[in-house]
Amino acid sequence: MGKETRIAPKDKVAIIGSGNWGSVVAKIAGHNVKRSSTFHHEVRLWVFEEFVEGRKLTEIINERHENVKYLPGHRIPENVVAFSNLLDATRDATSLIFVLPHQFVENVCSQLKGHINPNAKAISLVKGFNTTDSGIQPISHLIREHLQLPVCTLSGANIANEIAEEKFSETTIGYESQGDGKLFKELLETPYFRVGLVNDVVGVELCGALKNVIAIGAGIVDGLKMGDNTKAAIIRIGVLEMRSFIKRFYEGIKDETFFHSCGLADVITSCYGGRNRRVAEAHVVTGKSFEVLEKELLNGQKLQGTLTAKELNRVIAHDGLENEFKLFTAIYRVIVEGLPPQKIFEYIL
Amino acid sequence: MGKETRIAPKDKVAIIGSGNWGSVVAKIAGHNVKRSSTFHHEVRLWVFEEFVEGRKLTEIINERHENVKYLPGHRIPENVVAFSNLLDATRDATSLIFVLPHQFVENVCSQLKGHINPNAKAISLVKGFNTTDSGIQPISHLIREHLQLPVCTLSGANIANEIAEEKFSETTIGYESQGDGKLFKELLETPYFRVGLVNDVVGVELCGALKNVIAIGAGIVDGLKMGDNTKAAIIRIGVLEMRSFIKRFYEGIKDETFFHSCGLADVITSCYGGRNRRVAEAHVVTGKSFEVLEKELLNGQKLQGTLTAKELNRVIAHDGLENEFKLFTAIYRVIVEGLPPQKIFEYIL
Repeated sequence: MGKETRIAPKDKVAIIGSGNWGSVVAKIAGHNVKRSSTFHHEVRLWVFEEFVEGRKLTEIINERHENVKYLPGHRIPENVVAFSNLLDATRDATSLIFVLPHQFVENVCSQLKGHINPNAKAISLVKGFNTTDSGIQPISHLIREHLQLPVCTLSGANIANEIAEEKFSETTIGYESQGDGKLFKELLETPYFRVGLVNDVVGVELCGALKNVIAIGAGIVDGLKMGDNTKAAIIRIGVLEMRSFIKRFYEGIKDETFFHSCGLADVITSCYGGRNRRVAEAHVVTGKSFEVLEKELLNGQKLQGTLTAKELNRVIAHDGLENEFKLFTAIYRVIVEGLPPQKIFEYIL
Repeated sequence: MGKETRIAPKDKVAIIGSGNWGSVVAKIAGHNVKRSSTFHHEVRLWVFEEFVEGRKLTEIINERHENVKYLPGHRIPENVVAFSNLLDATRDATSLIFVLPHQFVENVCSQLKGHINPNAKAISLVKGFNTTDSGIQPISHLIREHLQLPVCTLSGANIANEIAEEKFSETTIGYESQGDGKLFKELLETPYFRVGLVNDVVGVELCGALKNVIAIGAGIVDGLKMGDNTKAAIIRIGVLEMRSFIKRFYEGIKDETFFHSCGLADVITSCYGGRNRRVAEAHVVTGKSFEVLEKELLNGQKLQGTLTAKELNRVIAHDGLENEFKLFTAIYRVIVEGLPPQKIFEYIL
């Protein structure tokens, strides 16, 4: 009575990673926090420092408000501030967005350990997972175990440049606590980038990883010029194997997840566009290995799908599940063992 | 004891309809019955008689074993016998395959009434449905009500010519009694044409009809050049509306149906190939009406998707469900009311 109302402290946002996708997320989050009463108006962006035309990338971003290397031509709002020091970027942050290649996550988490705000929540936009002898370790679990905080996931039919151009698209956030899911939805949704929520952290991120293997299958069919029925059949079988793989390792995952953007929409986008499809098609047409084509066609980028297919196969072979995952197994053999592509139909029958 | 073993009479197959798809089915069924102990070795094919180069089509099929008009270049086995008389074609038949345009089904059923073997079962490959004031009438129900026999359905990602070329594909049979489903699977499955079974007669056939409306949505996005994310989002929203429309009118339909070939695989095929997509894209690019483009591009064939969109809208509008079926409603308005295509995004938000 008569005293000032106690105001809950605002959430501070830190984005860990500033590649193509991270920069698009910085653009969106930067705009959204400006009109928000939930979030602090500064968004911090951790940049793996590099030199572009002789200048530090952090300096360029902070002066020109553009990531000239990874998202040229798109303005990042001026309230997004780039830091090269990870602990500076994440100091006091309560909403952490992980958006970096999956091989860097463990190292980043080690550096963050002990320096995280006790109220912090995270969301992982990372594709891929680790494999262990006992199965797979989703990136969300890796982050959660290292940093002891709740972790949501985000995945969908999200080609970064199309979202930067503000073309209509959808994505999915997987949450464990609905409040966290809603918080990140508020931070990341725009009229052109619609966020669906599903109570399924692991399903969302594993769809994002496994769809790349299905896309290789689709590319093989394209290379074989088998027609539309065959391609649709391979995609469908891929979705079924994706679903049963995820359900096998994470009981309680519902079919609903696959109807979200992270599920069938992302599969479709990847099987008709995307580099996994393209390289697989080129493999069939030219007979060159995936390694050679990766170098020739991708300008040094790695092919996520071949990596994931190998990791999947490690788990499938360890548990003797080849008969349950015939398409995944056949794709692995095409990639690694030189199985002639047209033989995949013998496998899946 | 000492008497001859009583042998169950063999199932006699009649195919009602001999267009492109009917002729492919005749090829498959004709081959399969030859090695079967379940089916009589003659398959009868009802042909809507017409003259081709001055000769009766039935005579050409029976002499040359080829449907030169609707499936040129593919041999139909000689144990498939063409009849122009419907009652001759179906006499004593116990397995009836309906594969004809949906506007002819009612008339054919009226002719068959009272002339059907009491043990007969049917399978409907017919696309589309009738609308009534109280909702929709699936073709399988129409056949069942007229002829008082059990009816299965078949639908999938099945471009007929690709199956005639024996390229790998899948389809789905929806059954009420599993025995009937298995019987028709035995009749129609081949190593290159894989049949999945699902206990859902209506879901299978309605997917086959509604996917054409989704394909129009996909074509609109293609015409607008909105990119891969947007197209995947529209397809996904279309699948959700298809699912909720079917579930609304037929309780108890399970999500499993949508994971079969009749579900997402057929949607994918139709949204990336197919004439509904093509005409919708041309509508956006040229601004010409669907009626005009139908004549210009389809050589007299009717566009199933526009018809289905109108029938759907009759039901949606009757029940005031526009807010639940925003995409279907927007597509209808583009087709019928001249809504500018780019406005569909305002509708679905």
